[in-house]
Amino acid sequence: MLVDGNQMRPIWFDTDLKIAKVIDQRMLPHQLIEADLNTVDDVIEAIQEMFVRGAPLIGATGAFGVYTAVLQDQGCNDDRFVAECDRLKAARPTAVNLAWGVDRVLGVCLAQSDRTARLAAALAEALAIVEEEAENCRLIGEYGVSLIREISQKKGGKPVNILTHCNAGWLACIEYGTATAPMYTAFDTGIDIHVWVDETRPLNQGSRLTAWELGKHGIAHTVVTDNAGGHLMQHGMVDLVIVGTDRTTWTGDVANKIGTYLKALAAKDNDIPFYVALPSSTIDWEMDNGLTSIPIEERDPDEISYVQGLDDTGKLVKVLVPPQSSPCANHAFDVTPSRLVTGLITERGMCSASQEGILTLFPERR
Amino acid sequence: MLVDGNQMRPIWFDTDLKIAKVIDQRMLPHQLIEADLNTVDDVIEAIQEMFVRGAPLIGATGAFGVYTAVLQDQGCNDDRFVAECDRLKAARPTAVNLAWGVDRVLGVCLAQSDRTARLAAALAEALAIVEEEAENCRLIGEYGVSLIREISQKKGGKPVNILTHCNAGWLACIEYGTATAPMYTAFDTGIDIHVWVDETRPLNQGSRLTAWELGKHGIAHTVVTDNAGGHLMQHGMVDLVIVGTDRTTWTGDVANKIGTYLKALAAKDNDIPFYVALPSSTIDWEMDNGLTSIPIEERDPDEISYVQGLDDTGKLVKVLVPPQSSPCANHAFDVTPSRLVTGLITERGMCSASQEGILTLFPERR
Repeated sequence: MLVDGNQMRPIWFDTDLKIAKVIDQRMLPHQLIEADLNTVDDVIEAIQEMFVRGAPLIGATGAFGVYTAVLQDQGCNDDRFVAECDRLKAARPTAVNLAWGVDRVLGVCLAQSDRTARLAAALAEALAIVEEEAENCRLIGEYGVSLIREISQKKGGKPVNILTHCNAGWLACIEYGTATAPMYTAFDTGIDIHVWVDETRPLNQGSRLTAWELGKHGIAHTVVTDNAGGHLMQHGMVDLVIVGTDRTTWTGDVANKIGTYLKALAAKDNDIPFYVALPSSTIDWEMDNGLTSIPIEERDPDEISYVQGLDDTGKLVKVLVPPQSSPCANHAFDVTPSRLVTGLITERGMCSASQEGILTLFPERR
Repeated sequence: MLVDGNQMRPIWFDTDLKIAKVIDQRMLPHQLIEADLNTVDDVIEAIQEMFVRGAPLIGATGAFGVYTAVLQDQGCNDDRFVAECDRLKAARPTAVNLAWGVDRVLGVCLAQSDRTARLAAALAEALAIVEEEAENCRLIGEYGVSLIREISQKKGGKPVNILTHCNAGWLACIEYGTATAPMYTAFDTGIDIHVWVDETRPLNQGSRLTAWELGKHGIAHTVVTDNAGGHLMQHGMVDLVIVGTDRTTWTGDVANKIGTYLKALAAKDNDIPFYVALPSSTIDWEMDNGLTSIPIEERDPDEISYVQGLDDTGKLVKVLVPPQSSPCANHAFDVTPSRLVTGLITERGMCSASQEGILTLFPERR
């Protein structure tokens, strides 16, 4: 999407240097820093240290990791090549898309016997993955924009107020994003929108990343605390909620960043549509009950205790907020039961958050 | 309550220096700093700069402000005295308790004609106000502890998990606090409790003040993001919610720190009791509908953009989190409709959050 008037993605191939580059998202919104992926170690660092985050982007980064492995492996030694790919996959073992991206590129490479052919195959496959992810998000935008257009028409063209939580934007997803895709499509087609951006404690992906993305693209937005959404909804200041998801059961239960459930409750209480945008790769076809089955990651309590920002000298620092001696608990996700979800927006269209709805869009899963 | 083994209040009279002192709460939890109230200007600064916050404490500080006015006004000039009191009341014009505290002490002073008698009367009245506030909170604790005791018995003595939002503790209320009063009483009588402390963005009164208070008194607690409460409730990790209030209508609608409504929705959805603790001075006997009538203060957006904490050199600094160019909106309170409130805990006992319930406890208001 646009950054200061230029098209940008969180990962891209530099045709001069013949390497992939990524945005080091840890420095956003205060510094836009690019990082070169010259080696497998560079890729592992980018994934582990969270230069990149978000399932689709992690998958794409892993895919380019295989490309760097071929680049480095002058002797074209298969054992070493596979070992390097294993090392890539171990960078974040719980990220399903990482292994998927690595294995897919590894597969096409192993079908080639010389290094030049492998290099070309690795690059082509990694680029294909990137384009597929971008296209999925573009389609989510195409389908989801109808919700916004309809509200805009009802409001006689007055700004449509959309609330979102966390960052399910292009920074996580190559282009358009998932939750943000309908917003970008609406904006790009001239619909007047305004986005309420939840800060999304503890890591502030909303105030740091979503606000940055939307602002750079020129979309009107306002950052609010995670506490504010209910009040905004009570007072008619939210027309629509759209969030992303880390995993959605095929029964329609939605795991997403902690706090999503609270917004869904408020939307229900105020009769406001609550939609979840997702590529179908996020659907878990095995789980029936999200609340009892989806494991919820507990992350480092220091993510709560320490807040990162710019100090008055312009240096990026972390500050301690609670008493050093007070324990913190950092449950990273919660599950919103399907009964609170108005609908899902996927690359195949929209459906209700139910087995029946999902199977209508994905009949091959019956 | 206890601070490192010593009894402490947020305001007290130093019998040696013959002046009142307060805790400068802006530095908590990282520094415990006392401030002397030598002059009317000291008192105005303490109120305006939020050394002190919370309705009962602001009222008590205003009361001691009148004492400093007498102390300074050697000539016992009534016009000047009343003007000084007006200046005190203007320090935070929306704080109802401030004008109430100032006027009450002013009244008893004007009934005396010489400075010595005025000084004695001002001190006695200010101290009386302090003790009345403390006693109200003690009674809230006495009544509210029954809820905790009952759950403790049902759980066979296992820790009772209580969630609270913001700081309705002794730092705001002289002693015991309001929402925290039943917790202190439970702890002091040997009931095993654990408190989930919402951070309470944007000013983090939960992680900064409530966590500090509870920790200093020895009460087990864990700081969580404002996003976490719903997840904790879904998984049986919360037995009871108790919050304070800034204003409650006589129909039972509760205005409190932004985000309270979201916790009330989650409590309802998970069948968890949601109680509001309040001295009856907080009840608004005029308003029927809190949602449409209670004005919601919009505060400085910088309170969202900048987070205060200790940097790695031990210095208290503020850091900028969102992009400098992203607007923030800072609605400070929300209203929880009475239908979501299980009950009220007052200095006269507990009642339902309804006109009928409230009038049963306060029949003189019929």
